[in-house]
Amino acid sequence: TNVTKLNTTSHRRYNPLTGEWLLVSPHRAKRPWQGKTEKKEGKSPVQYDPGCYLCPGNERVGGVANPDYKEVYVFDNDFPALLSDVQVSFEDDLFTAKSEQGICRVVCFSPDHGLTLSQMAIDDIKKVVDIWVEQYMELGARSEIKYVQIFENRGEMMGCSNPHPHGQIWATENVPNEPAKEMVMQQQYFERHGRTLLGDYLNRELQKNERIVIETDHFVVLVPFWAVWPFETMIVSKRTISHMGEMSEEEREDFARALRQITQTYDGLFEVSFPYSSGIHQAPTDGKEHPEWHFHMHFYPPLLRSATVKKFMVGFEMLGTPQRDITPEESAQRLITIYQSFQ
Amino acid sequence: TNVTKLNTTSHRRYNPLTGEWLLVSPHRAKRPWQGKTEKKEGKSPVQYDPGCYLCPGNERVGGVANPDYKEVYVFDNDFPALLSDVQVSFEDDLFTAKSEQGICRVVCFSPDHGLTLSQMAIDDIKKVVDIWVEQYMELGARSEIKYVQIFENRGEMMGCSNPHPHGQIWATENVPNEPAKEMVMQQQYFERHGRTLLGDYLNRELQKNERIVIETDHFVVLVPFWAVWPFETMIVSKRTISHMGEMSEEEREDFARALRQITQTYDGLFEVSFPYSSGIHQAPTDGKEHPEWHFHMHFYPPLLRSATVKKFMVGFEMLGTPQRDITPEESAQRLITIYQSFQ
Ligand SMILES: O=P(O)(O)O[C@H]1O[C@H](CO)[C@@H](O)[C@H](O)[C@H]1O
Ligand SMILES: O=P(O)(O)O[C@H]1O[C@H](CO)[C@@H](O)[C@H](O)[C@H]1O
Repeated sequence: TNVTKLNTTSHRRYNPLTGEWLLVSPHRAKRPWQGKTEKKEGKSPVQYDPGCYLCPGNERVGGVANPDYKEVYVFDNDFPALLSDVQVSFEDDLFTAKSEQGICRVVCFSPDHGLTLSQMAIDDIKKVVDIWVEQYMELGARSEIKYVQIFENRGEMMGCSNPHPHGQIWATENVPNEPAKEMVMQQQYFERHGRTLLGDYLNRELQKNERIVIETDHFVVLVPFWAVWPFETMIVSKRTISHMGEMSEEEREDFARALRQITQTYDGLFEVSFPYSSGIHQAPTDGKEHPEWHFHMHFYPPLLRSATVKKFMVGFEMLGTPQRDITPEESAQRLITIYQSFQ
Repeated sequence: TNVTKLNTTSHRRYNPLTGEWLLVSPHRAKRPWQGKTEKKEGKSPVQYDPGCYLCPGNERVGGVANPDYKEVYVFDNDFPALLSDVQVSFEDDLFTAKSEQGICRVVCFSPDHGLTLSQMAIDDIKKVVDIWVEQYMELGARSEIKYVQIFENRGEMMGCSNPHPHGQIWATENVPNEPAKEMVMQQQYFERHGRTLLGDYLNRELQKNERIVIETDHFVVLVPFWAVWPFETMIVSKRTISHMGEMSEEEREDFARALRQITQTYDGLFEVSFPYSSGIHQAPTDGKEHPEWHFHMHFYPPLLRSATVKKFMVGFEMLGTPQRDITPEESAQRLITIYQSFQ
């Protein structure tokens, strides 16, 4: 069949969510690797680190001390990438700059310095989900905030400077590039079909059953047909919801379960605390209806061959088109094997 | 003035060459860095390494031995990302894949294992430029090749697995994502103004003189107003040429000079063999006229604060919008200071 042929030849795939292509070179996974290897990502062996600025009770750089928090803890980033003051704007054909207001927050997932999401109890992950919902609604309600980007950089390899389990929220005056692209594509699809792009995609994927890694009551974790990173996955809600505020209690808990299962599967893949950047894409908070938006979460992990060899998105990827060495189908199979070994 | 205000507040800038935005957070450079540090990039201390598959006379993985080459040496990549065989294609709303034919080549810049472009004599860099021109013309003349992407991954940090000075060429059946975006934007500008986007941009930059790092007879090296990477630069030709095949002998030599000067400046910045990915963007080889295309070369170096601390393009960057911590103007000033100290 066609899909079998794709396993042996270089080809392009189209990402209907962003409108961009990627290059797949399945045969290339066989080349030997003599390049850079990374330090094996570890997790902290201690529950409390006196030098950690995220642990309960400790002082942060600004001089403020964290409260003795017992569950999730949110605070304003001491070094925010976005400010909310000066207004400046100039614009012509070639030089355009506009001030961007916003709010940056840090979300500590747990007081325990030694945990990762993958090791937290579902009930405790559920508390993180609840906070995400709360923050999305609260920040989104502000008139100057049009988008709330929730994300996590997990592991040193992903530029995370502190192993304490935490994520970030950057809420901005404009819809950032990636969700803006996804919005255009979802709008076009919705206008043509009256259904969400990801809802239809999910149904087709469930039928094909080639890239589904995990299925819970309300969510599916799959390797997208157009995945760029070697073990990239996406969590998609079965029900069409445009943002987290629409989730029922049961869905929130089930989402926590999906989060635990995929992060556990990742940790099992190379037997290492698995690095990734992850983030939630959902409707902008611009006060408009967004029936086209289908809630989902992306996981972009850098590892390719082992706990220490990552995929480099460099030369051709930066100047041409993102490229991957193993097929999404093969990655899905490997993740499924790990996931099943836990069950 | 407006530009002064931009130095102190978070803002977005628009890249007219790709149509995409970036986020600038000048104040954020002050935050302390406790995260991952990289190994200082070194260059090889030897001129010949018996274990290097790129050195003259040595055997490569496929079993072929390199000739005893004395200048530049080009060969077909033993692990090409692109093949030129199986035809397969399927396409619908949600699942689209097409085989992509192509040719991948490796270009050894010098037989000397211990050199980098920055240390080669201008005459020897000129020979690399001549080979790039030759390859662009030869590969571009093939009917199945629509784009010739010339690039270099320099340094371990950029996924380069061998310090022997070399670059790559991936020639493809379709125009890759990045030049495709640049083509749309350049076409629109050319239709509106009858001049190239980068020609007009270059004139404005030369007038402003805020981001010009190096000027030779025929080329300008500048930090683009919309640069994403901390010390990103672009080499732009003063004359409007759409590809390297149009360069005169004198321009080729002058381009070699510009290449030497910017790579030397980079090496001086943190006193380390400076890592980067670089690549040339020029007209597609689709047999059509491309008066809108203006020849240029991008340099994307990862380092931010020192020889060992790089910028991580992770969470918000991957899921939202690329973000930088120092302004392009400040980066340009720092590069200018280094460049001038050599003169
Ligand atoms: O071809 P190389 O040098 O083995 O590989 C390097 O460059 C390629 C092209 O940018 C990338 O796809 C690889 O991830 C990188 O490691
Ligand atoms: O905010 P942090 O954790 O200090 O910084 C990390 O995440 C940010 C958001 O993705 C990035 O801009 C930084 O490059 C990265 O090091």
